[in-house]
Amino acid sequence: MSATVNQLAGQLAGEPSPDGEAAREPIPALDGAVDALTRLVRADLDEVNRIIVANMDSEIALIPQLAGYIVASGGKRLRPMLLLGAAQLCGYEGQRHQGLAASVEFIHTATLLHDDVVDGSDLRRGKASANEVFGNKPSVLVGDFLFARAFLLMVADGSIDVLHILSRAAAVIAEGEVMQLAAANDIATGEETYLAVVRAKTAELFAAACEVGAVVADAGPAARAALAQYGRALGVAFQLVDDVLDYSARQARLGKAIGDDFREGKITLPAVLAIAAGDADERAFWKRCLEDLDQTPADLDHALVLMQRHGTLDQAMDRARGYGAEARAALAGFPASPVRQILLDIVDFCIDRDY
Amino acid sequence: MSATVNQLAGQLAGEPSPDGEAAREPIPALDGAVDALTRLVRADLDEVNRIIVANMDSEIALIPQLAGYIVASGGKRLRPMLLLGAAQLCGYEGQRHQGLAASVEFIHTATLLHDDVVDGSDLRRGKASANEVFGNKPSVLVGDFLFARAFLLMVADGSIDVLHILSRAAAVIAEGEVMQLAAANDIATGEETYLAVVRAKTAELFAAACEVGAVVADAGPAARAALAQYGRALGVAFQLVDDVLDYSARQARLGKAIGDDFREGKITLPAVLAIAAGDADERAFWKRCLEDLDQTPADLDHALVLMQRHGTLDQAMDRARGYGAEARAALAGFPASPVRQILLDIVDFCIDRDY
Repeated sequence: MSATVNQLAGQLAGEPSPDGEAAREPIPALDGAVDALTRLVRADLDEVNRIIVANMDSEIALIPQLAGYIVASGGKRLRPMLLLGAAQLCGYEGQRHQGLAASVEFIHTATLLHDDVVDGSDLRRGKASANEVFGNKPSVLVGDFLFARAFLLMVADGSIDVLHILSRAAAVIAEGEVMQLAAANDIATGEETYLAVVRAKTAELFAAACEVGAVVADAGPAARAALAQYGRALGVAFQLVDDVLDYSARQARLGKAIGDDFREGKITLPAVLAIAAGDADERAFWKRCLEDLDQTPADLDHALVLMQRHGTLDQAMDRARGYGAEARAALAGFPASPVRQILLDIVDFCIDRDY
Repeated sequence: MSATVNQLAGQLAGEPSPDGEAAREPIPALDGAVDALTRLVRADLDEVNRIIVANMDSEIALIPQLAGYIVASGGKRLRPMLLLGAAQLCGYEGQRHQGLAASVEFIHTATLLHDDVVDGSDLRRGKASANEVFGNKPSVLVGDFLFARAFLLMVADGSIDVLHILSRAAAVIAEGEVMQLAAANDIATGEETYLAVVRAKTAELFAAACEVGAVVADAGPAARAALAQYGRALGVAFQLVDDVLDYSARQARLGKAIGDDFREGKITLPAVLAIAAGDADERAFWKRCLEDLDQTPADLDHALVLMQRHGTLDQAMDRARGYGAEARAALAGFPASPVRQILLDIVDFCIDRDY
């Protein structure tokens, strides 16, 4: 293993880094439900982290450097944990799900790398984005590398069923990203288009992760469909909340940056609903800010006033709660168990979280 | 199918385009060996083109538009034809190789899209590159889409063996691209590093395409290894010649652009050898031009003079011929046949071509 990768393996395992920095917790402190899920899948997750580190290694030093940077940057590992949890819910006791959970995290990470290049983002999870630190070019190429390695992990597992679910998901995610790009800076974007983007770019991988958990456990078609449905609805709720948080007063009070979507002219649900409810003056304001990207610093505040006036953040949260209820309902067919309860609590976490 | 895709299907089949443009030949006129290979695999290749068009379709109109633009831009389809030819050499008579040949072309096309973004290229095969026409962002995302669709085509075929070969190749290609990026603008790049880049970014997919042809034909390990070796050596020769052509006086006489690598500071073999053979003044020249990218229009002419002085274009062609001989030798174990002869002739074509 390369030095970079050895060091990263230590960081993920909670060892102090060699340059004397404080020890990194392998998983950042999280709300109750995620803590519970993390404890539930702890042993598997350690192995997932080990597989992630081993499979992003390469003789080309820049690859583990860049991949390690984004992998260590403190994601919640929500998608791999959902896969592990779904497999447990279906009674799985083997180890195949570990490599596949790593594969799902690689697909997610590759998407993040390309996303940040496409959005020109300079921040990701509160630190400088990989493209900001290493440049756009290696970010595109290391994304490709991680994507290919994700498939190698699936191939090592050997299930064509799993390969089908995840390659289909990867194609749908890319479609969602293109759809989002085409809708960006277009205030005519309606709720339907917005939801189609969210289903494709976010919910598809949640659904695939949960369904793969059922597949490795050799669960029947009903359990597979139920877990895919759980993941899909949870994924939509997750993204809706993400989009609300980007305009959230609570976030602002916590000192977190808000308004990224606004500044980039991304048309998310809080804006879609405000545009639809607005009068001609308001539409002119949205057009100037989101289509023409002609903004002053005071415009974000005005956008928040309009969202408040029309109650669109609350409406978006209501939609998220609706999808949350759908996710919970999808698990109704599984007998009550601690795992099921944790997966139900995760729905609440995704909706009530403030990060 | 979308209108874009219907139109593209017509173009690839040689129908006149609806806006009255002259009919496009499905395959551009080519030298003898490629013509012969094209005739040999004609029926399969038509089906490959149909599969390509069908599988790049999407409800998101920008996807078939952008993918169709690059797919229709007149590539030779060399990699899919090699896969089809290798399968024929191994006596294959089924149709599985058609979808897999399309898959290989998708991986190649995805790589081209990302390459052009990474290189900031505005031209590809003599016309405006996709990133120039559609922008970098959709080029990155449509590349991801085609890559995912490539895997869906492999999954539809169902061979884990094939999936392993091609996902491994995809990871190695990405490594090669990162290696090339790290070596760019570094005149200390030696021949070994240059060849490692070429083997990874170009030869790996040639080798994979040929090996997959043997795998679908259920050929034994010796035939698989021989065809992989043929493809690998052919791929290195192909790239060496590509890099020579970028400095070729003959190209310049034909009115084709030369010097792209020079202007981008890519350190290809003709430069590697000239730098190694040069004196201190010459090294200072190469450093200014390729590392600092501080160039005047006359510098390319001076680079050509230095390459002429040290005979580096001829030396690079000698290396290419060496790999060509290796490729031909790899086919020695197959009984003489028209297919084998065509695959041998393709080696000569790759070396003697002037495009």
